[in-house]
Amino acid sequence: MKRNVKEKRIPQETIKRLALYLRSLKKLRKENLTIVSSNQITAHLNVTSEQFRKDISYFGSLGKRGVGYKTDILIEHLERIFGVDKERRIILVGAGKLGSALLAYPGFLNFNLRIVAAFDNDPAKIGKVLGGIKIEDISKMKKIISKIGVELAILTLPADSAQVIAEKLLDCGIKGILNFAPVNLNLPKNVYVLNVDMAAELMALTYFSKSLSKDD
Amino acid sequence: MKRNVKEKRIPQETIKRLALYLRSLKKLRKENLTIVSSNQITAHLNVTSEQFRKDISYFGSLGKRGVGYKTDILIEHLERIFGVDKERRIILVGAGKLGSALLAYPGFLNFNLRIVAAFDNDPAKIGKVLGGIKIEDISKMKKIISKIGVELAILTLPADSAQVIAEKLLDCGIKGILNFAPVNLNLPKNVYVLNVDMAAELMALTYFSKSLSKDD
Repeated sequence: MKRNVKEKRIPQETIKRLALYLRSLKKLRKENLTIVSSNQITAHLNVTSEQFRKDISYFGSLGKRGVGYKTDILIEHLERIFGVDKERRIILVGAGKLGSALLAYPGFLNFNLRIVAAFDNDPAKIGKVLGGIKIEDISKMKKIISKIGVELAILTLPADSAQVIAEKLLDCGIKGILNFAPVNLNLPKNVYVLNVDMAAELMALTYFSKSLSKDD
Repeated sequence: MKRNVKEKRIPQETIKRLALYLRSLKKLRKENLTIVSSNQITAHLNVTSEQFRKDISYFGSLGKRGVGYKTDILIEHLERIFGVDKERRIILVGAGKLGSALLAYPGFLNFNLRIVAAFDNDPAKIGKVLGGIKIEDISKMKKIISKIGVELAILTLPADSAQVIAEKLLDCGIKGILNFAPVNLNLPKNVYVLNVDMAAELMALTYFSKSLSKDD
């Protein structure tokens, strides 16, 4: 499928909201709702119906105002957009506390996301089994990744080792990195890096809660 | 300080980027740079200088184009914006794998963010010490929170117990929740909820990496 110019420019926040809409839709489908309104999809997400319609419209017309959306069709559509209509396999590098938590995280499989291999360079961690995955030595990364053909990685390493290992990941053919290390990775533009910084999230909370109490 | 209308409307993404600029600035200060350019601040953050200037301009004029920013002054300014010029104390609820990882996370103290108490309802976890914090019984939450006077909470509970406990947090005087539970919390508007959904982050990565390989 050739992507049009408009689709290319979609902001990261829109994409993250679309993922949350998909989460809502799956929950509504479990409740046997075959037709859903934008209000039902966005309930308690701090998103207006207007924002929802704008977000959805990036990918063409998907429902009629006042009629609602067919749950199944919208789910399939969003799954195709994210490329999770089929299973997506991911590797994880860094089996510390956060890495171990993500290896055991039950929420990925709901969205066809599966961590299939994990690596660390700490001899105390190598060989352990976490969340059903055996931790392998980072030195075996290239061999294992080329065998399983995975293109996405979760990086849960300390800041000081993240850059070196990220470069190794590129060398292993990785095209996208979800980076939890609190550091700006310096990588070429043909790899996509999405940063999740726990302190930045918490600071956003301090900011918005502060405005809230000032407004009262 | 009374906030003006413009400041109120600042998008979440701008605030998260400002937190990353603050992280960059602290790193540059460690490298003894007293004057920094927007390019230095945004290096490897996937942010243009134009975006940086736009983000910063929400809070007034802070530097002259071509001259650069005084590192110390911009850091102090951003710290005040986030309210982390003084220590901000936070509680954590849910001492499972992700909660334990966050209790041990070294990156919060860099930004004056300190987790001061943690709670769980699992007898196997209560009484344990994680990251220097003793896990207390959720039943003691109200008493402890009112004693220490904290207004911010990190929620790292499974989806099925998050709503009930979030309501308890409100009852304890909590004004802001960083919610890691993959569920849309139904709470009144006088509490600010910021959601971090690990699967949504990973789906955003699948989306953007996919576009990248299609464009090549």
